[in-house]
Amino acid sequence: MSTSLTIDGNEAVARMAYLGHEVIAIYPITPASSMGEWADEWAAQGRLNLWGAVPKIIEMQSEGGAAGVLHGALTSGALATTFTASQGLLLMIPNLYKIAGELTPFVLHVAARPLATHALSIFGDHSDVMACRATGCAMLAANSPQEAQDFAVIAQAATLQGRIPVIHFFDGFRTSHEVAKIVAVDAETVRTMIDAGQVAAHRARALSPEHPVLRGTSQNPDVFFQSRERANPFYDAFPGIVQAAMDRFGELTGRHYRLFDYVGAEDAERVIVLMGSGAETVHETVEHLNARGERVGVLKVRLYRPFAADALLAALPASARAVAVLDRSKEPGADGEPLYKDVVTALAQAAADGVRVMPRVIGGRYGLASKEFTPGMVKAVFDELSNSVPAKDRVRQFTLGIHDDLTHLSLPWDEGFRTDASRQLQHAVFWGLGADGTVSANKNSIKILGEATDLQAQGYFVYDSKKSGAVTVSHLRFGPAPIRSPYLVENGMAGFVACHQAMFVDRYELLEHAAPGGVFLLNTAAPPDGVWETLPRTLRAQIREKNLQLWVIDAYAVATEAGMGRRINTIMQTCFFAISGILPKEEAIVAIKQAVDKTYGRKSTRLVGLNYRAIDMTLSRLHRVAMPAHELQDMAAGQTAASGTPAALPDFVRDLTLPIYHGHGDALPVSRLPVDGTYPLGTAQYEKRNIALEIPVWDADLCTQCGKCVLVCPHTAIRARVPG
Amino acid sequence: MSTSLTIDGNEAVARMAYLGHEVIAIYPITPASSMGEWADEWAAQGRLNLWGAVPKIIEMQSEGGAAGVLHGALTSGALATTFTASQGLLLMIPNLYKIAGELTPFVLHVAARPLATHALSIFGDHSDVMACRATGCAMLAANSPQEAQDFAVIAQAATLQGRIPVIHFFDGFRTSHEVAKIVAVDAETVRTMIDAGQVAAHRARALSPEHPVLRGTSQNPDVFFQSRERANPFYDAFPGIVQAAMDRFGELTGRHYRLFDYVGAEDAERVIVLMGSGAETVHETVEHLNARGERVGVLKVRLYRPFAADALLAALPASARAVAVLDRSKEPGADGEPLYKDVVTALAQAAADGVRVMPRVIGGRYGLASKEFTPGMVKAVFDELSNSVPAKDRVRQFTLGIHDDLTHLSLPWDEGFRTDASRQLQHAVFWGLGADGTVSANKNSIKILGEATDLQAQGYFVYDSKKSGAVTVSHLRFGPAPIRSPYLVENGMAGFVACHQAMFVDRYELLEHAAPGGVFLLNTAAPPDGVWETLPRTLRAQIREKNLQLWVIDAYAVATEAGMGRRINTIMQTCFFAISGILPKEEAIVAIKQAVDKTYGRKSTRLVGLNYRAIDMTLSRLHRVAMPAHELQDMAAGQTAASGTPAALPDFVRDLTLPIYHGHGDALPVSRLPVDGTYPLGTAQYEKRNIALEIPVWDADLCTQCGKCVLVCPHTAIRARVPG
Repeated sequence: MSTSLTIDGNEAVARMAYLGHEVIAIYPITPASSMGEWADEWAAQGRLNLWGAVPKIIEMQSEGGAAGVLHGALTSGALATTFTASQGLLLMIPNLYKIAGELTPFVLHVAARPLATHALSIFGDHSDVMACRATGCAMLAANSPQEAQDFAVIAQAATLQGRIPVIHFFDGFRTSHEVAKIVAVDAETVRTMIDAGQVAAHRARALSPEHPVLRGTSQNPDVFFQSRERANPFYDAFPGIVQAAMDRFGELTGRHYRLFDYVGAEDAERVIVLMGSGAETVHETVEHLNARGERVGVLKVRLYRPFAADALLAALPASARAVAVLDRSKEPGADGEPLYKDVVTALAQAAADGVRVMPRVIGGRYGLASKEFTPGMVKAVFDELSNSVPAKDRVRQFTLGIHDDLTHLSLPWDEGFRTDASRQLQHAVFWGLGADGTVSANKNSIKILGEATDLQAQGYFVYDSKKSGAVTVSHLRFGPAPIRSPYLVENGMAGFVACHQAMFVDRYELLEHAAPGGVFLLNTAAPPDGVWETLPRTLRAQIREKNLQLWVIDAYAVATEAGMGRRINTIMQTCFFAISGILPKEEAIVAIKQAVDKTYGRKSTRLVGLNYRAIDMTLSRLHRVAMPAHELQDMAAGQTAASGTPAALPDFVRDLTLPIYHGHGDALPVSRLPVDGTYPLGTAQYEKRNIALEIPVWDADLCTQCGKCVLVCPHTAIRARVPG
Repeated sequence: MSTSLTIDGNEAVARMAYLGHEVIAIYPITPASSMGEWADEWAAQGRLNLWGAVPKIIEMQSEGGAAGVLHGALTSGALATTFTASQGLLLMIPNLYKIAGELTPFVLHVAARPLATHALSIFGDHSDVMACRATGCAMLAANSPQEAQDFAVIAQAATLQGRIPVIHFFDGFRTSHEVAKIVAVDAETVRTMIDAGQVAAHRARALSPEHPVLRGTSQNPDVFFQSRERANPFYDAFPGIVQAAMDRFGELTGRHYRLFDYVGAEDAERVIVLMGSGAETVHETVEHLNARGERVGVLKVRLYRPFAADALLAALPASARAVAVLDRSKEPGADGEPLYKDVVTALAQAAADGVRVMPRVIGGRYGLASKEFTPGMVKAVFDELSNSVPAKDRVRQFTLGIHDDLTHLSLPWDEGFRTDASRQLQHAVFWGLGADGTVSANKNSIKILGEATDLQAQGYFVYDSKKSGAVTVSHLRFGPAPIRSPYLVENGMAGFVACHQAMFVDRYELLEHAAPGGVFLLNTAAPPDGVWETLPRTLRAQIREKNLQLWVIDAYAVATEAGMGRRINTIMQTCFFAISGILPKEEAIVAIKQAVDKTYGRKSTRLVGLNYRAIDMTLSRLHRVAMPAHELQDMAAGQTAASGTPAALPDFVRDLTLPIYHGHGDALPVSRLPVDGTYPLGTAQYEKRNIALEIPVWDADLCTQCGKCVLVCPHTAIRARVPG
């Protein structure tokens, strides 16, 4: 009897890691932090692991220290793990070489993230894990929250048996922070997967005064090389051990995985090879294209190291005459990315052996720092692989998802391409302000839908790295079939778009996601009969052109009246359920109230009461706004909205800074960016975030001249005048 | 007018680095330490760089700190460098990504060394630099002290022009510590190579309050990817920039280099591709084989990153139908090492383009942790590449220099193979005790020969990592032609073998290097007419069989009488020159005395006088020992020496520990080594190093019961008895 959970990838992994470990070394780094936070919280609650103990959570001064804790704990026979990403992972590299060299069973969970180069980025790609591929650790890639949970268990089972430490990785944010409905792995399954004999063997190898041995020696040229080769049989055996663990897991759960999982036409001529969440996008696109008579496929790389070339070749259809290998990383100075070179080598060797004709192989970079990777881009790759491209125009190395006007590597793609799977889903998009409660409310909504219905659900939240006070966009999907869409809600697909902050109407393309005939919900202080005139002309034009239903609520007024201060999350959530009709309204209200109980029940019955009141008030304060008659005339006249950019801006600000501020950064071509991450100063003046709901005014009668206002004002709008 | 210097690779690099930099961040790690030590010493002496300033030498708490200093100094516009290896290099990885991402000109000099895995090793291979190949740094490999000097300059010229930081690496110990006679690059050449305009441009990009900019930003998915691609033109241009710097350097010095330097037959069918000192061994072997009518070649990879596949293909003869790529590193879990995969990819792409038929390509690992790499092994690779190996027996991945009885990857080789070049050299081997002065004396001897004659000279010193008190073996070569033999003196090749410590006669294979008819010089307290009987039977048999001249001196007696205490280095050096005849005896004595002046002159005229006296005494105390008549009978009877191993040893000690103690570790097959670097305790009891010349005796009358003897005895031979 399987239970479903609606949680994000990090929580899914943390649950498994917590069950199977005794020592958990942590140090927070985005996007891995919440795995450590969950473990820390559960330990504080006294939650038990498989062996009835509370794991010891150890936070160090950095990931370097955490890695030292791990090496020590593992060497003393403990089952130890950690969670990290990016620079944190780099700090662990020295210990990873040691842990692998000593054949120590260990799983390291990585929410993969770029390494800081010209700039840092907190988002997702594989450059951090690729920096560890020489360490001797195995590398196992999970493509979704479901797989991240499952592979956490498979990795631990395999490492205990095979003694090769495993870097289990999944895409930062895209998988770590995607909330999805998954089938939970229960403790009994984990217990069955983790072989008690192998745990005992690990403990028996510990450094202990009871049976002392020497480890960590210094070796000279006479024996070091032989010693290094001595571990070969462990690496040779490991792919088989992982496959066996996958098979055992499949028997227990019904979810079957292979080292390389092929999906697509048996006689596919064109195949894409990749790993990570992008493989799901390709999977979805392959099904769409094959349903239209194409013969394409995707090879999902799950065990990247040890690299089992024979398993790869066995999984790749013999019919494949054109292969694209996609890497979510970049190694400047290499003439091809790592997975590309691995696959070319495997195929060239097979060709040399005469067992397979060498197909055409091309390599692409995609998705750096969570750059979107969509079915349209996948289609572009398959198109490039088709024979219809004249030989002279074919590419060997390319990039996807950007416009490279400088080195001309980018493939163009059709932004309007949509898959059948995507068309069968319901999509909703919510514009909120960081810390205004929008994201939390949406997570709640997904959980309600995931738990109260048979619907599959997915939520992904685009945060600005400015954190509190910046825009957040929530992308929600619901539908009856499994959701393999690890990309943002596409333009024109969202039947429901909500804007939780009225000042966004002037600033963002709020309605690009909106589907024709959909709903636009706006939180605004303007009265229903006056709101239309407060909207900018471009927005009004889009509402008209897409024939959207406009709904409004003054959520801040409701919140204030309900005694909730500035907390509008429950109110906006109620509006979503009231309008969208995904659940019957009454059922939804009950579920929202249950969620309120769950969130606040233990803290305060007063808060629960206030939320209940707000929910009830919301329904009566939500209004649908009809389009004024004169707008229909505008529409008939085909009048379009004017847009303009203020004149007299510095070129850099006009060409780069403002497009980024306005949310058009994705469209910037490569040549516009600085070569080395150097930016001019003084550009905050052009941003005018203007997010304050209230403007403080200096009251001379109250001022004690303490001067603190000068210190705390982040924009130095308040300055001290010190008499000279 | 070019000057020659007889120095090691580290000093050669440090001289160039010192000239061209203002900030030198240091942290000592073997085998890179002496580069930092030289820089520190020269700065303390007030030596000036190119701009008439003393570089600022900054030692931090670790290489992590040194990397931070560099990033900071470079970002503030300084010309900054450092020297490191192995784990030290790992600690710099995070900053290397940043330095490269910000397109900062910078050269990092690495004496390449293994990373600690199952054990650490202080010796040489490329696993450390390979761990950095994803950082975005260029990588330039020097193969000899001469090239290490030259490439230090070329790297700096190129990085200043192209803005890609360069990891300039050379083999730890084999190149860093090999003393060789090189043509010096003078300051004027360095000044010409370093373009003042590019230095000014670097300074102009500095962070400065005079022209403030922002660097080190955080980027979101919208623009990070484009920004990462923005640097492509710099990487595309860099190989050309390096080649241009090489060409400029060639014009100035007459030493011409290419990104990929091919040596061998124009129509070679078999080619080995590799980088580092091993390329010189292949070069020497190629010349030997081609002189015998074979058609083979070597492709030396100099610029490894950016990897210029077109330059590689242009350099590799079109006739090559079988290629072996050798990597001096190992990535467990990869099904081929990095350079192998790079070359396979380049060739497969060329084959796909139809410009070249795909040759057979095989990949080998060699030389891990300074494992020997000899012409015999090179011959084995060429043999494997030949058509005479039946197709079914051909290998794809192999190891060289070990006996792998476990995974059967190793190629067998002929240990007796010698090149013409090797036969034309004079070889000498010296057995000393760490800190007994043998190595210093030999370095002195090489300098004397290098500076006083037209001879080429090479010295390499095999240290036991036990440091002081362990055996050191000095391998010296002299000859008229350039020496391309970065491997130890081969068995049977040394016309001169000296043993500076009498207790070694029972312990090591002192005479395996000795050439028939050569000299064996022994420092012994036994009198000339009684020494023969003190030698073990096996040694006597070797002297007989190889017909060696036996010379003896009681160097400790001479040292004591001359007032030199236990310092025998000058005495043994005098013996070498007196017997070997490489220089006329009188000329040699003058040179040795000049060396004494140079070493001690500034410190103490008394020490100079003592050394002079020891030198003069030496000649009268050096004796040639005739072989006693009864030995000739033994010889006629063909009697061989008995050898035996003590019985009742633990298996592990018998099979592994003792062979290592006795210097036979190289012969141990892979299966004998522990899988994970775990060793039993208590094995020091079997070593019996027995190196003390005097044994202290406890004198009850003098003992104050302080107990310190217990603390300082490293083998706990002295124990405290505390009355209970």
